[in-house]
Amino acid sequence: MSDNKGCFCRQTIDPAAAEMLEKAGREKIETTWDRYERQQPQCGFGDLGICCRNCLQGPCRINPFGEPKEGICGADADLIVARNLLRTIAGGASSHADHSYSAIKCLKAAAEGSAPYSIAGADKIKSVAAKLGIGTEGKADSDVALEIAIAALEDYGSYSDEPMRWLKATVSPGLYERWEKLGILPKSPDREIRTAMHQTSMGVDGSPVNLLLSCLKLGLVDGYGGLQIGTDIQDILFGIPSPVKSEANLGVLSEDKVNIIVHGHMPEVSEKVVEWAGKLEDEAKAAGAAGINIAGICCSGNEVLMRQGVPLAGNYLSQELAIITGAVDAMVVDVQCFMPSITKVASCYHTKVVTTSPIGQLPDAEYIPFEPEGVDESAQKVVRLAIEAYKGRDAAKLQIPKHKSEAWGGFSVESIVGALAAVDPENPLKPLVDNIVAGNVYGAVGVVGCNNAKVTQDRTAVEMVKDLLAHNVLVVATGCTAHALAKYGFLSPDGAKKYAGEKLLAVLTAVGEAAGLGGPLPPVLHMGSCVDNSRIGDLLGALAGYLGVDIKDLPVAASAPELQHEKAVSIGTWAVAMGVLTHVGVIPPVLGGPLVAKVLTSDIEGMTGGKFYVETDPHEAATGILAHIESKRKALGI
Amino acid sequence: MSDNKGCFCRQTIDPAAAEMLEKAGREKIETTWDRYERQQPQCGFGDLGICCRNCLQGPCRINPFGEPKEGICGADADLIVARNLLRTIAGGASSHADHSYSAIKCLKAAAEGSAPYSIAGADKIKSVAAKLGIGTEGKADSDVALEIAIAALEDYGSYSDEPMRWLKATVSPGLYERWEKLGILPKSPDREIRTAMHQTSMGVDGSPVNLLLSCLKLGLVDGYGGLQIGTDIQDILFGIPSPVKSEANLGVLSEDKVNIIVHGHMPEVSEKVVEWAGKLEDEAKAAGAAGINIAGICCSGNEVLMRQGVPLAGNYLSQELAIITGAVDAMVVDVQCFMPSITKVASCYHTKVVTTSPIGQLPDAEYIPFEPEGVDESAQKVVRLAIEAYKGRDAAKLQIPKHKSEAWGGFSVESIVGALAAVDPENPLKPLVDNIVAGNVYGAVGVVGCNNAKVTQDRTAVEMVKDLLAHNVLVVATGCTAHALAKYGFLSPDGAKKYAGEKLLAVLTAVGEAAGLGGPLPPVLHMGSCVDNSRIGDLLGALAGYLGVDIKDLPVAASAPELQHEKAVSIGTWAVAMGVLTHVGVIPPVLGGPLVAKVLTSDIEGMTGGKFYVETDPHEAATGILAHIESKRKALGI
Repeated sequence: MSDNKGCFCRQTIDPAAAEMLEKAGREKIETTWDRYERQQPQCGFGDLGICCRNCLQGPCRINPFGEPKEGICGADADLIVARNLLRTIAGGASSHADHSYSAIKCLKAAAEGSAPYSIAGADKIKSVAAKLGIGTEGKADSDVALEIAIAALEDYGSYSDEPMRWLKATVSPGLYERWEKLGILPKSPDREIRTAMHQTSMGVDGSPVNLLLSCLKLGLVDGYGGLQIGTDIQDILFGIPSPVKSEANLGVLSEDKVNIIVHGHMPEVSEKVVEWAGKLEDEAKAAGAAGINIAGICCSGNEVLMRQGVPLAGNYLSQELAIITGAVDAMVVDVQCFMPSITKVASCYHTKVVTTSPIGQLPDAEYIPFEPEGVDESAQKVVRLAIEAYKGRDAAKLQIPKHKSEAWGGFSVESIVGALAAVDPENPLKPLVDNIVAGNVYGAVGVVGCNNAKVTQDRTAVEMVKDLLAHNVLVVATGCTAHALAKYGFLSPDGAKKYAGEKLLAVLTAVGEAAGLGGPLPPVLHMGSCVDNSRIGDLLGALAGYLGVDIKDLPVAASAPELQHEKAVSIGTWAVAMGVLTHVGVIPPVLGGPLVAKVLTSDIEGMTGGKFYVETDPHEAATGILAHIESKRKALGI
Repeated sequence: MSDNKGCFCRQTIDPAAAEMLEKAGREKIETTWDRYERQQPQCGFGDLGICCRNCLQGPCRINPFGEPKEGICGADADLIVARNLLRTIAGGASSHADHSYSAIKCLKAAAEGSAPYSIAGADKIKSVAAKLGIGTEGKADSDVALEIAIAALEDYGSYSDEPMRWLKATVSPGLYERWEKLGILPKSPDREIRTAMHQTSMGVDGSPVNLLLSCLKLGLVDGYGGLQIGTDIQDILFGIPSPVKSEANLGVLSEDKVNIIVHGHMPEVSEKVVEWAGKLEDEAKAAGAAGINIAGICCSGNEVLMRQGVPLAGNYLSQELAIITGAVDAMVVDVQCFMPSITKVASCYHTKVVTTSPIGQLPDAEYIPFEPEGVDESAQKVVRLAIEAYKGRDAAKLQIPKHKSEAWGGFSVESIVGALAAVDPENPLKPLVDNIVAGNVYGAVGVVGCNNAKVTQDRTAVEMVKDLLAHNVLVVATGCTAHALAKYGFLSPDGAKKYAGEKLLAVLTAVGEAAGLGGPLPPVLHMGSCVDNSRIGDLLGALAGYLGVDIKDLPVAASAPELQHEKAVSIGTWAVAMGVLTHVGVIPPVLGGPLVAKVLTSDIEGMTGGKFYVETDPHEAATGILAHIESKRKALGI
């Protein structure tokens, strides 16, 4: 319960969130911000990354101002920081790899006919088969899909010393060669994760620089084992997204419908809940509701927005607040980013929390496993549980904020190219590149990542993106940052008029109108979930290929303004490995290692062309990113 | 530099170590104990396991006496402790799995003829092929070895949902079924490691109990993916150990020979150094030395003691002290347990430190990669580097402690059964079991694990084992604990007379004489390196099978009196999963989670039959272990 009455400016810039925080205070419900306050002050050693617990002689801590300078084994600050960072990145890469692996298993089951998924992405089957060199002539789609699933599993299970097939099939030869020279090409994702855990255990690697090279390698494990395979397979299973109009923020919850929140990351779960909510609408009506309303939180929300137009209820920091509306009948979670607190908050309302993954349990939730084979039964159970819960809603506790904004999703690379093809069907990238060359589009920035209780919800992302758009920088977004921008209209055509600089607006309008949208494209293109960051990588690869330059030479940058999860660190490392300047708006625990910090924010540029850029102030960050774009433009002579 | 002049009773009970600590003080060389002192007081949050750094909102800490009770995400103490524990076990299991994987790759290369290893373990090829169901009829050994290597790689690369083939081939159906019912049977080791890292990332598993089940699963990953495959393959490559007499402690270093220390864990490295030291003896003589003397530290030492009779120079805490003798010309490390400080200590002497693994680098060491294909050239380089270094020895700094003890190694299960077969060739286990039943051998305890600067070097192990032997308990040992016991004569026939109770002495004498040793067996049988703990598992399985009971019913226990590495935690978890009472003499960081601590030390017994037993006092620990053995004897009616 916050003591602040009325003003929650430290916590959030989102008026819907503030309204719910006020309600939480009244109803004496604790939220993550209360817990954040109670955690202050946070441990400075941990903050700097100079605390080591990798063996039972520890914990050891380095004093940044004097003694001790070394842990019991002799590890100094840089070594401890580098080891911790590699374990963080291994955690992120493992999360995405495990996600991806589930998707592959699901596609395999579907292609074999043992799981009721329809394999909706015929075009993606063709493009993925083509890049992997899998023939499609005369084969049924499901057979090709099965071959693709097995190729993915073989990449995971490979014991050869060849690098990942999927990586080689995806990136340019130039990028591949650079990584080969650095010795960072990953073999099987799982082998690299295991080796990284070994490398960071007591008494193995004593070289911070060697550990940082492994950080890059694990970044590539995430980029290709996690993101790329994940997105490719999910597009095959559920279809390639195309532009779709929807809404965002807590105002999307319905007073008179059964509200089911899908929360987590796995479309195998959320897609099935959406499907069965549609099929069981009559049962909801029989229970007195006007129907069933699905809304999404975190990347589950992004997945079903991208492909089904399902509205976004809120991002990471809003998950408890959604329950506090009193309007959520069921919240279905799978893996990643759901707070263990949600069952405690739900216990104050009628809300049912459902877990679906064997590794994502909550002691007080209902566990309904979503195995591919029995997924229809599981999804029905979830929907019926929500309908049943709806009957127990407490009107006295119901308060849905009115706030919501129009938000467009569905901007896959295929759909962006499709929109551009309306301008130049022969050469779709030409209009974009010509406008970049002409300075009408000054550059492009991928703004991605999470919320983090350390920073005011949505503020860093929104303030920074405002500055970028005003300077005619095109923004693409994913993850909880896409949610953040959605809430304030950045993902809508109106947002173009409101936020985009004059030149950018003209381009967005020309493309939007040519593509038949009857107005400008949104100034921020929603490219999907965190796993969908691979789409940004694909887009960068396509642009670099079209121009005949390296990704590192493009006038682009990446930013995770409010990162929180280990996944954000591993994704960021992948971006740096590709040669992208990668801004982070929350300071990662590396500053205690001066050499490590210097390598990550400077020296690494000489190796990959990319580097990390740490800046907590959104306006300063925008200024820094604009300067970077300017320098890249100059180097290209444009 | 310790301030203690003369007395190092806090640091060690080893007089050789004390002598070197005194020399270190004189020469102003810092050791791990100096760093330990400077780390005091250590962080209480980390000690209790209630510090979480799994996302960038943290570090979060739980106050065991009040607020905050939850991290920013809502994770409470038990959840944080359980997540940290699973990551620790994943670190340990990864270390052993990666070790094992290197051994498999080495065997494959050798079997294919591309690496110059002789594949010395013909008997092991047969027994491993038999348990895996690989036919050997009419096949060359190297072809069967290749099939075995590929079977191991396929276990690692498996994407089926079947549990590990190696595990199923190794354990009893009863154990397998119990683990199946608990849902803890691992599939591919690497997949389980990746999933554990995912499960512990922010916002995935919120159930401490579910996480503890995964801890057990990762314990099995270590037990079968790490230890069992590792030992099986290493025995195939280098031969099954048989009893061999050697010596232990710093006194094994030679004043007039070139001294090379092998340190780490991989026999692929240490065996080749031993081989080439023999072949290049003349070059050493040409350089003025009397020859070449190899001595081992940590498990590299155990590996070459077990198979080649190479003496043990010292265990984990003695690694810096070996260099401080001024007599070490080269120290060759591979992976695990070498302190990053050794190059700093070596820089004060003429000692060359050589790293050999791409993931085990030290900035100031010489890196000579030991890839299977070029391993002979690498080993020659190392030996010649040591000979060259020998020429630069500084006589003024030379001081080799006189202390050393006779120590026998080589007690593989095969050689133990072989010794027993001298008593009863038809039924080799019968004499042992009969003596257990008769109470002449009261029980058996595997004493394993590390040194840890938190406790006086060797003291807990030695004091506890004295008590156990006096009560006629047979002890088997591995790892740095075997080194510890070696130093004080426990691994020698004389040790039987000195330490064993009357009844045990009679049994050891009868078996030793029947086996032609001309005296008693040592009262502590050295079964090898930490990876060789699989031998203890095999022995337990054989005894249980002979008696027709479960391992959990045997009058046995395990103990890691001075554990330090994550590997010790994962090995211990495997032992608990097998149903063994597992003592730890250093408190693992779990006490901050009351539920977790209760499950690990109590409730888990109802699931696996085993549990952890935390006791820091060696005599109390022995008393507790004896009481456990007594209860098991009673339950068996003996």
